[in-house]
Amino acid sequence: MTGALELGLPMRRPRAGLPERVTVWEVGPRDGLQAEPTALEPAVRAELIRRLAAAGASVIEAGSFVRADRVPQMARSAEVLAALGDLDARLPVLTPNPRGLQDAIDAGAREVAVFLSATETFSRANLGASMADAEAAAEEVVRTAVDRGMRVRGYVSMVFGDPWEGAVEPDASARLSERMLAWGVAEVSLGDTIGVATPGAVADVIAAHAARGVPVDRLALHMHDTYGQALANVYAGLEAGVRIFDSAVAGTGGCPFARSATGNLATEDLLWMLDGLGIEHGMDLSAIAGTGDWLSAELGRATTSRVARALAGGKEAR
Amino acid sequence: MTGALELGLPMRRPRAGLPERVTVWEVGPRDGLQAEPTALEPAVRAELIRRLAAAGASVIEAGSFVRADRVPQMARSAEVLAALGDLDARLPVLTPNPRGLQDAIDAGAREVAVFLSATETFSRANLGASMADAEAAAEEVVRTAVDRGMRVRGYVSMVFGDPWEGAVEPDASARLSERMLAWGVAEVSLGDTIGVATPGAVADVIAAHAARGVPVDRLALHMHDTYGQALANVYAGLEAGVRIFDSAVAGTGGCPFARSATGNLATEDLLWMLDGLGIEHGMDLSAIAGTGDWLSAELGRATTSRVARALAGGKEAR
Repeated sequence: MTGALELGLPMRRPRAGLPERVTVWEVGPRDGLQAEPTALEPAVRAELIRRLAAAGASVIEAGSFVRADRVPQMARSAEVLAALGDLDARLPVLTPNPRGLQDAIDAGAREVAVFLSATETFSRANLGASMADAEAAAEEVVRTAVDRGMRVRGYVSMVFGDPWEGAVEPDASARLSERMLAWGVAEVSLGDTIGVATPGAVADVIAAHAARGVPVDRLALHMHDTYGQALANVYAGLEAGVRIFDSAVAGTGGCPFARSATGNLATEDLLWMLDGLGIEHGMDLSAIAGTGDWLSAELGRATTSRVARALAGGKEAR
Repeated sequence: MTGALELGLPMRRPRAGLPERVTVWEVGPRDGLQAEPTALEPAVRAELIRRLAAAGASVIEAGSFVRADRVPQMARSAEVLAALGDLDARLPVLTPNPRGLQDAIDAGAREVAVFLSATETFSRANLGASMADAEAAAEEVVRTAVDRGMRVRGYVSMVFGDPWEGAVEPDASARLSERMLAWGVAEVSLGDTIGVATPGAVADVIAAHAARGVPVDRLALHMHDTYGQALANVYAGLEAGVRIFDSAVAGTGGCPFARSATGNLATEDLLWMLDGLGIEHGMDLSAIAGTGDWLSAELGRATTSRVARALAGGKEAR
């Protein structure tokens, strides 16, 4: 038996009305690794990023400038950036506060990202601040970075549901997105942190943004696959005109609150759908799958990517 | 932490233009179990079907009338039916040849199903016959059953891709569906046997059927989740007007050719999306998930349903 990719699968079957090209924003080295029990050395994280770039990834979240005692998986992110000075890829990093931003600037970062929560409970649990205080802190980081000519991404967590509060109204994230764009962020990534969204909710959240004048080309979708819904939600996002999608090679990450093995949407699974739809993304699925296999071995865990598992099974069967 | 379902998740967010109600055709006791390494006794299979019916399943594939030496997992399907004579649910069974049909009739079956392959290679490998010979055999079964007033479902395998031939043209399945409907089948279930389809292919296959005069209300989608694409494909099917979807509790089954742990779309994952979209299906997700947990224990394997795993994780965390 030959492998699926060598057989020309998935079949390329475009759909009218979908974007012709999208940006896959690879979050594995940051959002993925920060939630893994195994912490990787900076040299290994840099090697992962080099492999992703070689496979065609053009935007790769490279690290997080946070307290190493709180997120040991992201310790020494400056060394990761230092090892990648020559790389031809955008390497945004997470900077949740002014101290983190300064450290990122000192490390040579040119793109940064900040986080807000759409719910009060998660803001206090995860950011350690009320929504109002978190907004004030994020605004300071964003304005400082923008003043220095940096590109800034805003994230909103718990857009589609919250493990304490349950349902979240679409306007809760739209309100935050509107504010962050006013501060100067280039785009807002809408996070389904616990993976509970379904396609109608995606459409409603994008519509709530449009009602506040936030155009869809300033939005990214960051779907977790905890309940297996991520790709259906991406498809709903494509139909609504979204052209930026976050994913993590090998499906690394996860939500500690759901205690599930599945975390971020796997880049491999996303690329399979995009390839089938004939939507350009600039990455090579086979090379990304190889990178995911390498990363899974480094982490000592099985991939959660169904594409990666199926491709590996096909190779065994040959 | 409270469980997701108790928190009212997923959020109910309907989409205009989708069906208000669908039939979930539960294939776990047949298509699921026939591919599991552990064979369950007829009494256990009957208990599974009773639990599914109690959870609201209205159509449950109950068994297969095939040679027990070829498919030992389906041996003694007559005993399964005999144990369920009083059950308030439709219980179709697979009858690939006239002998199987007669055995099913003798066992009291009122609904049966036949199979064809959209590709020559799979027809010879799986059905042991050329496509032409398989069509002739299926026609005999269908006409005999229809003459006796039975409801017959036709299946087409390898609709979206084949592990030997690669891409499959949409009209290959449409041609077979047109024929089977002419013989008198009530509906045709289109199978993505190796799970390679993407949403554009689903739309194209349905359009190819329409071009041959096959209306969408005579079609069911039978998506495997091998490459993680099943739910996105179901969503594309809903948008195209499909109102019958096959799934298997706990994601049992799988394609022996892909050597993947993932098989049929898990009923739990399908119900999560349908509940979020506000589409009625008559089943209770919590009860189905409980049935999947019970079945997984009987099989001695982990569920492949992401919803089931996430719900179990949420319970642990409480």
